[in-house]
Amino acid sequence: MAAFSFQTLQNKFDQLRSNKVFELLVIGVIIVSALIIGVKTFEVPDWFNSALNILDWAITLFFLTEITIRFIGEPRKRDFFKNGWNLFDTLVVTLSLIPIGHQDMALIARLVRVFRVLRMVSIIPELRTLINSLLKALPQLGYVLLMMFVIFYIYAAVGTTLFGAINPTLWGDIAISLLTLFRVMTFEDWTDVMYETMAVHGWSWMYYLSFICLTAFAFLNMVIGIVVNVIENENKAEEAKLHEGEPTLIDIHAELKALRAEIKTLKQ
Amino acid sequence: MAAFSFQTLQNKFDQLRSNKVFELLVIGVIIVSALIIGVKTFEVPDWFNSALNILDWAITLFFLTEITIRFIGEPRKRDFFKNGWNLFDTLVVTLSLIPIGHQDMALIARLVRVFRVLRMVSIIPELRTLINSLLKALPQLGYVLLMMFVIFYIYAAVGTTLFGAINPTLWGDIAISLLTLFRVMTFEDWTDVMYETMAVHGWSWMYYLSFICLTAFAFLNMVIGIVVNVIENENKAEEAKLHEGEPTLIDIHAELKALRAEIKTLKQ
Amino acid sequence: MAAFSFQTLQNKFDQLRSNKVFELLVIGVIIVSALIIGVKTFEVPDWFNSALNILDWAITLFFLTEITIRFIGEPRKRDFFKNGWNLFDTLVVTLSLIPIGHQDMALIARLVRVFRVLRMVSIIPELRTLINSLLKALPQLGYVLLMMFVIFYIYAAVGTTLFGAINPTLWGDIAISLLTLFRVMTFEDWTDVMYETMAVHGWSWMYYLSFICLTAFAFLNMVIGIVVNVIENENKAEEAKLHEGEPTLIDIHAELKALRAEIKTLKQ
Amino acid sequence: MAAFSFQTLQNKFDQLRSNKVFELLVIGVIIVSALIIGVKTFEVPDWFNSALNILDWAITLFFLTEITIRFIGEPRKRDFFKNGWNLFDTLVVTLSLIPIGHQDMALIARLVRVFRVLRMVSIIPELRTLINSLLKALPQLGYVLLMMFVIFYIYAAVGTTLFGAINPTLWGDIAISLLTLFRVMTFEDWTDVMYETMAVHGWSWMYYLSFICLTAFAFLNMVIGIVVNVIENENKAEEAKLHEGEPTLIDIHAELKALRAEIKTLKQ
Repeated sequence: MAAFSFQTLQNKFDQLRSNKVFELLVIGVIIVSALIIGVKTFEVPDWFNSALNILDWAITLFFLTEITIRFIGEPRKRDFFKNGWNLFDTLVVTLSLIPIGHQDMALIARLVRVFRVLRMVSIIPELRTLINSLLKALPQLGYVLLMMFVIFYIYAAVGTTLFGAINPTLWGDIAISLLTLFRVMTFEDWTDVMYETMAVHGWSWMYYLSFICLTAFAFLNMVIGIVVNVIENENKAEEAKLHEGEPTLIDIHAELKALRAEIKTLKQ
Repeated sequence: MAAFSFQTLQNKFDQLRSNKVFELLVIGVIIVSALIIGVKTFEVPDWFNSALNILDWAITLFFLTEITIRFIGEPRKRDFFKNGWNLFDTLVVTLSLIPIGHQDMALIARLVRVFRVLRMVSIIPELRTLINSLLKALPQLGYVLLMMFVIFYIYAAVGTTLFGAINPTLWGDIAISLLTLFRVMTFEDWTDVMYETMAVHGWSWMYYLSFICLTAFAFLNMVIGIVVNVIENENKAEEAKLHEGEPTLIDIHAELKALRAEIKTLKQ
Repeated sequence: MAAFSFQTLQNKFDQLRSNKVFELLVIGVIIVSALIIGVKTFEVPDWFNSALNILDWAITLFFLTEITIRFIGEPRKRDFFKNGWNLFDTLVVTLSLIPIGHQDMALIARLVRVFRVLRMVSIIPELRTLINSLLKALPQLGYVLLMMFVIFYIYAAVGTTLFGAINPTLWGDIAISLLTLFRVMTFEDWTDVMYETMAVHGWSWMYYLSFICLTAFAFLNMVIGIVVNVIENENKAEEAKLHEGEPTLIDIHAELKALRAEIKTLKQ
Repeated sequence: MAAFSFQTLQNKFDQLRSNKVFELLVIGVIIVSALIIGVKTFEVPDWFNSALNILDWAITLFFLTEITIRFIGEPRKRDFFKNGWNLFDTLVVTLSLIPIGHQDMALIARLVRVFRVLRMVSIIPELRTLINSLLKALPQLGYVLLMMFVIFYIYAAVGTTLFGAINPTLWGDIAISLLTLFRVMTFEDWTDVMYETMAVHGWSWMYYLSFICLTAFAFLNMVIGIVVNVIENENKAEEAKLHEGEPTLIDIHAELKALRAEIKTLKQ
């Protein structure tokens, strides 16, 4: 009997999970929780701060209830944790149980609360699809990214060897050099970096120009790779949809052959 | 009798509205009004300034007359205000009735006159089409923009929490942090911002690099999304136009089947 | 008899004009003339400078001869000046007759010689095609460029009105404001400009952000417009070439109808 | 008998070369060699440095062995050096025989070791394909790059002539001017450069604006050229693959003609 009532509960929660009004409510609470985080960065009177803390507890409780409903609503408990978004939600909600007033953990507690805004992504299906498609695009970029890292690494090693003595703040070791090269790639005051080393090694403009051209070229290649890939997939999907159900030229050819055979039998 | 003459007036004005010469005249007056605004920003002798003020009144009068002609020319008065461009024109013309010499309102009067230049868009059909197509493209970007805002908001909240004490001018509250992050996204002296926080939190380069990569990736995604969408629409429109009126493979298949049936009747 | 020999001369020159070796010779002389311009910007001994001046005269003479050959080689003299490139060549060569040693004109004489490098474009057919295709693309951009100018003009007028008193060097009159806005569009130290006006008008970040977003969006639109246009043209050209000479579905449909008519006559 | 055993050795080495495990081992050693280079840029205790030097020797030995295996494994010795990647590998390995401890050559020895990281590209087939496709794309860009160089050269010559006296550090000779223009193209503090010359020549903003617009336009053209080219090739390849083996409209047309002829013979 208890099992039965649990079953009913589960069914009800399952329906609730995919209910549009429930989804909108959760989105609303997420927005409120985001606003609290934002408001708290401004100077607010003490009584308002206390009110926000109480609201924060209410939100934590709401999220906890929501995640429990989702979990109970799941017909097969195992599938719940197979879904990456559920894992992410559970983690964020659990971690935000850390009390915000606690001395040592105040900073962490506040940072964890920030990530509750990310629940926006896990709750809105369109954003989830967006992230998934981004993640799917990444492996295709794998080799171009590896290529870029090789270019960065070689230039950083050469830069450290040659310019390390000139300005250790920019070229002290390979990690700092990698950061400096990233800065050069974004064109951020790169001439200041260059003029400094050119004062010692007059030819060092070649180092910077070749680096900029190489990374720009590799970056361009990456962008074009993605564009072409996306367009190709779109075309394939569209082509398949467009001519679905239509007879192909193969069908028509076969039909014609049959006709000719038919006529041949007429002759006899 | 009066009604009849009004009808004639309306018809004449209706024709006038779509008259090419009238349109060119209006464009000309808009350009003159734009030039006045420009010239007034330079130092000019007093008599010239007075002349410009008189010219400004003449232009205001002209625009008032023009909008009245448009309104009277409209067969159904309701439709006039259903058109957003008409509403915009009426608003700009009405507001520019504020006298430019008035002490308290001088600034507002001058700003309103600037927006008369925007009438260029409402009068040239090609520019109107351009704006409409831009507005139509916006909703498609909705979710990517929401995604970007979520990224910005989370980074701003984290930035305020961690770097607020280091430099309140850049990270004081979440609004200022959002502005600072926009600056970092445009690569504008972002290393200065970074080096400052790195002096306290050595690992903060990760914050900036991950932010730059995320926003660049999201931006890229947005651009590609638009490109693919536009190309797709073009292809569909072209395909439809190219093969319009041509028999499809389905027609030919049907024709062949009819033929075979015909031949079968021959046999009997 | 004289007319005849002139005819022969013209034919010979006409052949010479399209001769590959002659073209390469001209390209060689252009490169030498470019090198002279470059070398002269460095400190060189006097005797070397004199040698360069003599070489310069030789080049001027060569170009004069070449343009004469081209002119005489032209069967119909009128057509020579109908070609924009010929006009450009004649102008550059004529102007470089200004003696480089002349006191007052030294600067102009040197600048004119720089434009001889542009003859590279008029002599190499591939570069000529490139420029032509660029010029052909411009009118399509016309309305987007007009749109961008309207945006720039309005923002410049507003900027001058509001910020003119804060920093006249950046916002003094509408011309300077246009330059400042171009600078903001290239993200070049735009935050310095913004922070300065934000000190007086706290809300002025909206001015800059909206401007950056609008111009970025308009620019994006322009790029996409070009890409789509180019791809469309390519597709059309390819499609036409691919299926040229092939029977269309219309032909096959007609053929089938004829067949059926034929079979009908059989029955009777 | 010796010849025979050598043959066996060659076959074994040939198999080894294309062995996946062997490839992974080589990649592993390359990564270790890259890590050594990186670690050495940090401050390390002496004993650790010595250990790294020994490891470096081991890696050099390993690479030497590997290249020998590759060479012996090659059935036709000539083909080995026809492959550019083999040449590159041999060069890098041979040069890294320079002892790292040697006084005068220490710098060169260290730089050569950096290039061992590039062996990553020669060993991973996907990266090799990437580089090859990049190199194949270059010639298509040839004329646009030439065009851009002509633009740069003319602007540099004009800039040196006009601004050389204002700031020799930026416009001293044509080489420095080219570098300054590259800086302007990347928008790096270009307004500082401009304001300086505008103080003397008020109209010089035209020089910078026209240069920025021209290079931006040429660059855009280059990017679009590559995108269109890549998409076109993809389309062609796909089209060919999609309809391979299918009867064309030509086949069907021929078939129909044959049918009609057949029916005509029936009539008689």
